Amino acid sequence: MIAKLILDKKREGKALGSAEIREFINGFTRGEIPDYQMSALAMAICCMGMNARETADLTDAMMRSGRCLDWSVPTADKHSTGGVGDKLSLVIQPLAAACGVAVPSLTGRGLGLTGGTADKLETIPGYSCSQSLERFQEIAANVGVSMAVQTDEICPADKKLYALRDVTGTVASIPLITGSILSKKLAEGAHTLVFDVKFGCGAFMKTVEEAKALASSLVGGARAAGRNSAALVTDMNEPLGFAVGNANEVVEALTMLSCGDRRLDDIADLCVEFAARMVALEKCIPHGEARAMCLTKLKDGSAKAKFLSMVEAHGGDMNRFEALLKQPTAKFRVQAMKSGYVSAIDAEKVAKVAFALGAGREKAGDKIDPLAGVTLAVKRGDKVSVGSPLATLETTRGQEALERLASDILKAFAITASRPEPRKLIEAVVE
Amino acid sequence: MIAKLILDKKREGKALGSAEIREFINGFTRGEIPDYQMSALAMAICCMGMNARETADLTDAMMRSGRCLDWSVPTADKHSTGGVGDKLSLVIQPLAAACGVAVPSLTGRGLGLTGGTADKLETIPGYSCSQSLERFQEIAANVGVSMAVQTDEICPADKKLYALRDVTGTVASIPLITGSILSKKLAEGAHTLVFDVKFGCGAFMKTVEEAKALASSLVGGARAAGRNSAALVTDMNEPLGFAVGNANEVVEALTMLSCGDRRLDDIADLCVEFAARMVALEKCIPHGEARAMCLTKLKDGSAKAKFLSMVEAHGGDMNRFEALLKQPTAKFRVQAMKSGYVSAIDAEKVAKVAFALGAGREKAGDKIDPLAGVTLAVKRGDKVSVGSPLATLETTRGQEALERLASDILKAFAITASRPEPRKLIEAVVE
Repeated sequence: MIAKLILDKKREGKALGSAEIREFINGFTRGEIPDYQMSALAMAICCMGMNARETADLTDAMMRSGRCLDWSVPTADKHSTGGVGDKLSLVIQPLAAACGVAVPSLTGRGLGLTGGTADKLETIPGYSCSQSLERFQEIAANVGVSMAVQTDEICPADKKLYALRDVTGTVASIPLITGSILSKKLAEGAHTLVFDVKFGCGAFMKTVEEAKALASSLVGGARAAGRNSAALVTDMNEPLGFAVGNANEVVEALTMLSCGDRRLDDIADLCVEFAARMVALEKCIPHGEARAMCLTKLKDGSAKAKFLSMVEAHGGDMNRFEALLKQPTAKFRVQAMKSGYVSAIDAEKVAKVAFALGAGREKAGDKIDPLAGVTLAVKRGDKVSVGSPLATLETTRGQEALERLASDILKAFAITASRPEPRKLIEAVVE
Repeated sequence: MIAKLILDKKREGKALGSAEIREFINGFTRGEIPDYQMSALAMAICCMGMNARETADLTDAMMRSGRCLDWSVPTADKHSTGGVGDKLSLVIQPLAAACGVAVPSLTGRGLGLTGGTADKLETIPGYSCSQSLERFQEIAANVGVSMAVQTDEICPADKKLYALRDVTGTVASIPLITGSILSKKLAEGAHTLVFDVKFGCGAFMKTVEEAKALASSLVGGARAAGRNSAALVTDMNEPLGFAVGNANEVVEALTMLSCGDRRLDDIADLCVEFAARMVALEKCIPHGEARAMCLTKLKDGSAKAKFLSMVEAHGGDMNRFEALLKQPTAKFRVQAMKSGYVSAIDAEKVAKVAFALGAGREKAGDKIDPLAGVTLAVKRGDKVSVGSPLATLETTRGQEALERLASDILKAFAITASRPEPRKLIEAVVE
C-alpha cells in the first residue's frame, strides 16, 4: 500500500520523502513494485516535477542499485547529452588524462539518431569497449584513460526504468533524465563530473532554457553527491566539425589531436575548454592555468599519445584501422545548387541521412557500418558557388542508397545571399 | 507505437483525438495495451486533465466495451457518489417509479467505508441483486423499478481500469471518475440521469468546488450522450438521517416511505426533490408539477407499494426481514458527556465506527453483518444534557467490539453552548 500512498502524494504535486523514493526504486528493482506502478510514478514525475532534494534521492537510489566504483587517484569524466558529429570525448578524455587526471569513462552504445562514442571507438579493429569493471579500472589507473561500455553491474535500476520510460512516454522529464545520467556517472566514481548539455535541432533538448535547466539539475545533483561539477550549455543546431558517422569521426578526432586542420580550431577549442574544466576542478587550480596546460598537452602530442595508449590497452590496432579506411565504399558528392553563404546546416537532417546510410542502430544489437556517414565539405559561414561541394555521403550499402539520400542532405543546407551572423558554441556555463 | 505517441501528447497537456482515446481503451480492454501504459495514461489524465469532449469520448469508449441496454418506455435513474447513511435510493427509485417512470438501477456492492445500496437491499432475506440483465429489464419494465448489481457484461473496460486505478493512485481525477460512473449509467440505458454529487468529510469529494466540477462533468457528459440530466450538489458532512449500517437503513427508508417520522422530513424532502427532477426531465413537465406528483405518491403509499413489489420481484421476504430485526445483537448506547447543542456529527467518524462494527467490507467478497451499524439518537441542532443518548452501536461481533468503539463514536459529536446555524442539504443545482 505504500506505493499507492507515494503515487497519491506525487500526483498531488507534493515532495516525496527520501525513504519513500528509496523504497519505491528498491521495490521496483527487486520486482516487488510492478511496472504499472512505476510507470504511473514516472508519469506523475513528468507532470508534477521533483525538487532538487528529491532528484538527488532518486539518483542516489538508482546509483546504489548496482556496483559503485571507488578511486584513490584524481579522476574526472565528461558526459555529453548527445549530439550530431559529437566526437569530442575522443579528444577531451585523453587530453584531461595527459594533464594527470585519470579519466574512467563509461558510456552506452548508440541507439536511434544518437551516435555512441563506443561505436566510434570500436571502428578501430580490435578495440573492445566491453571490459570487466576490474579491467576498466586497471586501464584507467595505468594508462590514465579508459573508455568502455557500462556493464549490467552498474545501475540495474536505471536499465529497467529506462526501458519502461521508453514505452510509456515518460522520457522527457528533467528529474528522470538527471537520475538516469547522473546515477551511472556517480557509480563510475569519478570525483569531478563535467557535463556538455546540448540544445538545438540535433539535441534532445530543443531549447536553451530546457538545456540550462537540465545542466543546473545535473550540476546540482553531482554536487549533492559530493562531486566537483560544472556544465557547458552548447549549441547543437549544426553538426560538430565535418564528420558525422563512426570511422570518419575517429579520423577527425585524430586530426584534432594532431592539431592538423585549422578549420577544426573552433571545436578543438571547445575540447580544450572542457578538459580545462575537468583539470581545474579536480586539481583545484585556476581555470586559466588548466587551459594553458591543456593547450600545451594538445600541441605537444601528449593527448594523442594518451589516446593511442588507450586504444592499445583496449586491443585496438591503428594499422588495421588505416587499412579499413582504404576499403572500397560507395560515395556521392553533393554539390551546391545556388551561390551564396552557408547560413545553416541542419544537424538533425544530417544525422538522419548518416543514420540511413548505416551509421546508426535502429534497435539494440543491430550492426553498424563503420565507414558509413556524411562528411561535410563546408561549415556555417562559408561562401559557395553553384557546383561547390557541400558534403560527401559514404556507405557500403551500395550506390542506390546514396542517390535516394542526396536530395535529403541538400535540404540540410540553407544558402543565403548575406553572410550569417557568427554563432557561439558555448551558450552558457553552469558552475 | 501509437500508445507512446498518445502518452506523449497527454503528458504535454494536449487534447487527445476521439480515435486515439477509443483505440487506447479498446486496446487496453483487449489486453493489447499493457497495464504499465494504461496506468501512465491514467496518471497523465490525473495531472493534465481532459476537456469535456475528451471525457465524453472516454466515457463512450468505456460504455461500448460491453452490453448497452435499450428501453422503449420512459426511464430514469439517480446515481449517488456515495455517502454515510445514504439510503436515499431506496426511497427515490420507487418514488419515481410510482410516478410512471421506469427505474432500471444498476449499482455496485460497497467497498471500504462506502456503503452499497445492494448490500442494504440484500439484508432483506431472499432479495437478490444478482439478476441476469434480461430479468433486470423484465422487473424494471413490469414492476417499474429494479435495483440490481451490474453484471460483467456491463463496461468490462471500467472494471479493468478501475482495478488498475485503485493501485496506481489514479482514482482522484474528474475525467476518470466521470468516465467510470457515466459509462455504466449510459450502458444501463435510462433516458434521464440525475446525480447526487456529495461533498464533505463523509464524501469522496471533500470540497464544494470539487463536487460542483464533478457534477458539471457528469451532467455535461450525460447530455453529450443524448440523455436528460441534472445534478444536485449535497452536503455529506453529517450522516443522512439517523441510521448508518444496512438493515437499519432499510428500516429508515421504509419509515420515510410511510411518512412515519417527522424528524426525517428533511431527508424525505431531499428524496422528493431528486425524484421530482427525474420525473420532470423524463416527462418534460414543470418541476413544480413533478414535485406535487411525487409528494402525492409518497403520501398515498404508492411509493412504498412500488418498493414492496420490487422486493418481491427480487425474491425478498419482508416477514423474514421483520424476524431478522428481532435477532439478538450486542448493543451499546453512547451518552452525552456534556450539555449543549449538537453542532456537528462527523460523517466520516460515524462511518468508520459502523465499518468496524461489521457494516462494511474490507475487500471484495467479504461478508457483511446485516444488523451491524450505528443509529444516531440526535441530529445536528438538537439540545442534549449530560447523559442524553447520542447513538446506539449494534453488532453481532460481541460486546467487546462495542466497548472499544464507544469512545470513537463520542469523538464524532461536537457539542457546543450555542445553537449551530442551520445548514442546507442542497448546496447547488447543476442543470
